[in-house]
Amino acid sequence: MTRDRLFLFDTTLRDGAQTNGLDFSLEDKIAVAKLLDRLGVDYVEGGYPGANPLDTAFFSERRTRRARFTAFGMTRRPGRSASNDPGLVDVLQASADACCFVAKTWDFHVRVALGATEEENLASIRDTVEAARAAGREALIDCEHFFDGFKANPDYALACARTAYEAGARWVVLCDTNGGTMPDEVEAIVRLVTAVVPGAHLGIHAHDDTGQAVANSLAAVRAGVRQIQGTLNGIGERCGNANLVSLIPTLKLKREFADLVEIGVGEQALGELTQISRAFDEILNRAPNRHAPYVGEAAFATKAGIHASAILKDPATYEHVPPESVGNRRRVLVSDQAGKSNLIAELDRVGIVIAKDDPRLDALLREVKALEAEGYAYEGADASFALLAHRTLGTLPRFFDVRSFRVMVERRFNATGDLVTVSEAVVKVEVDGEILMSVAEGNGPVNALDLALRKDLGRYQSLIADLELVDFKVRILNGGTGATTRVLIESRDGAGERWFTVGVSPNLVDASFQALMDSMNYKLLKAGADPARDTSLDHRRRAS
Amino acid sequence: MTRDRLFLFDTTLRDGAQTNGLDFSLEDKIAVAKLLDRLGVDYVEGGYPGANPLDTAFFSERRTRRARFTAFGMTRRPGRSASNDPGLVDVLQASADACCFVAKTWDFHVRVALGATEEENLASIRDTVEAARAAGREALIDCEHFFDGFKANPDYALACARTAYEAGARWVVLCDTNGGTMPDEVEAIVRLVTAVVPGAHLGIHAHDDTGQAVANSLAAVRAGVRQIQGTLNGIGERCGNANLVSLIPTLKLKREFADLVEIGVGEQALGELTQISRAFDEILNRAPNRHAPYVGEAAFATKAGIHASAILKDPATYEHVPPESVGNRRRVLVSDQAGKSNLIAELDRVGIVIAKDDPRLDALLREVKALEAEGYAYEGADASFALLAHRTLGTLPRFFDVRSFRVMVERRFNATGDLVTVSEAVVKVEVDGEILMSVAEGNGPVNALDLALRKDLGRYQSLIADLELVDFKVRILNGGTGATTRVLIESRDGAGERWFTVGVSPNLVDASFQALMDSMNYKLLKAGADPARDTSLDHRRRAS
Repeated sequence: MTRDRLFLFDTTLRDGAQTNGLDFSLEDKIAVAKLLDRLGVDYVEGGYPGANPLDTAFFSERRTRRARFTAFGMTRRPGRSASNDPGLVDVLQASADACCFVAKTWDFHVRVALGATEEENLASIRDTVEAARAAGREALIDCEHFFDGFKANPDYALACARTAYEAGARWVVLCDTNGGTMPDEVEAIVRLVTAVVPGAHLGIHAHDDTGQAVANSLAAVRAGVRQIQGTLNGIGERCGNANLVSLIPTLKLKREFADLVEIGVGEQALGELTQISRAFDEILNRAPNRHAPYVGEAAFATKAGIHASAILKDPATYEHVPPESVGNRRRVLVSDQAGKSNLIAELDRVGIVIAKDDPRLDALLREVKALEAEGYAYEGADASFALLAHRTLGTLPRFFDVRSFRVMVERRFNATGDLVTVSEAVVKVEVDGEILMSVAEGNGPVNALDLALRKDLGRYQSLIADLELVDFKVRILNGGTGATTRVLIESRDGAGERWFTVGVSPNLVDASFQALMDSMNYKLLKAGADPARDTSLDHRRRAS
Repeated sequence: MTRDRLFLFDTTLRDGAQTNGLDFSLEDKIAVAKLLDRLGVDYVEGGYPGANPLDTAFFSERRTRRARFTAFGMTRRPGRSASNDPGLVDVLQASADACCFVAKTWDFHVRVALGATEEENLASIRDTVEAARAAGREALIDCEHFFDGFKANPDYALACARTAYEAGARWVVLCDTNGGTMPDEVEAIVRLVTAVVPGAHLGIHAHDDTGQAVANSLAAVRAGVRQIQGTLNGIGERCGNANLVSLIPTLKLKREFADLVEIGVGEQALGELTQISRAFDEILNRAPNRHAPYVGEAAFATKAGIHASAILKDPATYEHVPPESVGNRRRVLVSDQAGKSNLIAELDRVGIVIAKDDPRLDALLREVKALEAEGYAYEGADASFALLAHRTLGTLPRFFDVRSFRVMVERRFNATGDLVTVSEAVVKVEVDGEILMSVAEGNGPVNALDLALRKDLGRYQSLIADLELVDFKVRILNGGTGATTRVLIESRDGAGERWFTVGVSPNLVDASFQALMDSMNYKLLKAGADPARDTSLDHRRRAS
């Protein structure tokens, strides 16, 4: 059975750069281009050369090895020739394999936004495509507002598409610029367009304003388009663009599409999809979306006890695709609904193998339930769960012990008469029977405590040198300042590994202390540090 | 033209409670039920009575006024009569208008997960529906894995649906439990099911594992179902459930659906949708998704550029629906005028009347913008906003001043050798030129500070005697322990009035101090307390 080739056009670095509150540096753009080549998309739209210094610099050389490096621009201004439009000239002179030009196709826009006649606009499309081809570039035309335009004036929208195609544009891309079109409308309209431009030359550019950018893209593919434009993790203006990270697995793993089309992303790249998606969030310095389709940390996580036992009987019963196929993994969550089977699966995941009839299992289950009743939440804190398990099973080495700490927050007038608030922490740590005292100031009590705790751990110090706090979350579990507080801390180390720890107490500083201790102990555990030589330390669950 | 009634079934408190990392308190559940009644959904599925103490307590009474309060459960276990299945009995005895039972409809699951014969499973469906009706409850059957089951064995899946309907179930809900079904498959399969069960008795329950839960729900409506199950902001297990907050505006504002069906959500509730969505995130104590369809802060935001100018010419050219229709707003960097009129409206709401041309208005607008840039959020803190306004307008009496405070948290061994953590606060307050020192211990630094601050306010003491802290929320505004912290405090007094105050600082204790001070000052302001006699106190924004 022969399948059509479906081309993936990534616009993370152009339309994605419009994302509210996002700013790429040149280094960011170079790193993203590398990620996209690794993923195996066919086109990388890098930006708008000439529009700003950053994009101009980015197009000073080709930035991709595999993908066609694409410059974005606008069709020549009405009333000018292509060679007399400086904006267009910048785009054509940029180091790129292809040029994608946005063109008006909604008659209303031609009048209101462009202030030109319909004929002038068609001529501008024709001239721009021809100028790009004359410059040796593959030409693409983004038909802005195509679907709204088609509904308002189908003849003119089609005339724009036909003009671009007949002028030699390799691709005529139908854009749902406002993102308000429904999938069945997209499918019906695309079918009509294929009578004018062959599907092999049509693309879809969808936005997520009704939460249907992915569905709209797939509807267009069913109707015949053979190019999808989208972004990594669906970033983009307003609600974002079509999410390629969601689309790629569906195109490769769902029978309906796998039988219909093939894409340039191979099995191996698909297996790295989760890693690529998270690497992109790293570049944006933001936390990955735990609930993202296919690649989210929770995408294959199950909480309910009834489901959990069934999953262990046969994963296929509760998973629409195998997590490994997209480089993700199954997670059966320990929670207040936790059954023994959840627990064994979760232990296995943190590398602890234990027999189903091991009596220590009941003790651990009781312990987990008791702590969760106190407010601990281990499903979000793998590292704390691993430590708790090792502790209860008696397999946790003891490294150091905090004998005492004191945190002080003082608000007073400083020498120059300004009101200032200072935070200071003093900790007394015992390593191999030796007492080490450290003091530190921070911009808050938890920050001061964190700094003091990690200031001097004796012979363990070198092992925690690359330990870094990434995030700190506080949840008040019930009303009032006297309420129980849960602190969740995310840590990272030089190897790029991330782990989560949890602490619970009526006292926020105490809860933070527990989570900080768990994080340090987890780091030492995975570093394979030797236990403390002095084993006389009396053991305390929360203090080590 | 007559339109069918489409029913909205909210499962935020049941399926949504499966969300990885989320756990509702009883207070949370009560607050969410109120929100859902305000929104106007038809069914509120509150949980699984009998499965855990929380849900059992929640079903001790009806928690909704408008919506049908619905208990979730499982069909009776094979080999038992309905009356001998304790789990089923718990569900039927709960205070609820309706009961929704999950039933297996995939023959593979009946064998593997349930370990029963196909006939036993049909009997279990029939008996369960009849038992619910005998108990005076409206009966719903959730057909688990219906679409996977239908693809594997259509006859059996249909037999399950028919059995439920013929036994008298008001609704037969088709669940895409694994979330892997495509919209066109959903539409085609639903059309086949309507030959067996009328669409007026069919529902859809979609999950977002391919990013198409919304599209799948709408495809099912096109095919004839008249109930949609979903959650607020799309929370739910794995990648979440169908997002009702995205679906509702599409159903009401998009011609295709507005012409086809009508829902119980009115124009006014639609206009409060953004507020309701964010109030829900407040309850979850998480930051709203800036890019959420319709209600996200960025949903109608345009970065300056080609679009911005066109938007000013005619918003319709770049917005698929009017932002106001869903209680959201357009964001283009221009609207200081809008800001001003918003401000006047806000002032009016807290009882401050001021002329539109009052020069102090510009100063206040600048101050509010500066503080919101720092992280203050006044939409949730009326009392702090009122104090800020009075302060900037020069109409805030000064009552007392905190000269300094010191909070200490110490973890050490007590006399009996146990590790204990103690918190102590010392405050120095000035009233009428007299210095009053107080000290208090608390179960945490903020609690200790609160107690010390309210221990002795001199002649104001009697006026704050009935001041009570109701709730305390902490939000970390950006990653790391060095991040900015926002504290929101809810207070109440003997008259039963409640007010909210906010504080922001890198230092959590400092942020809490600001919110506590605002709360006390607001109480004195509304009590009409006399200003401090000594007016020489130098004024500090955050300290009074």
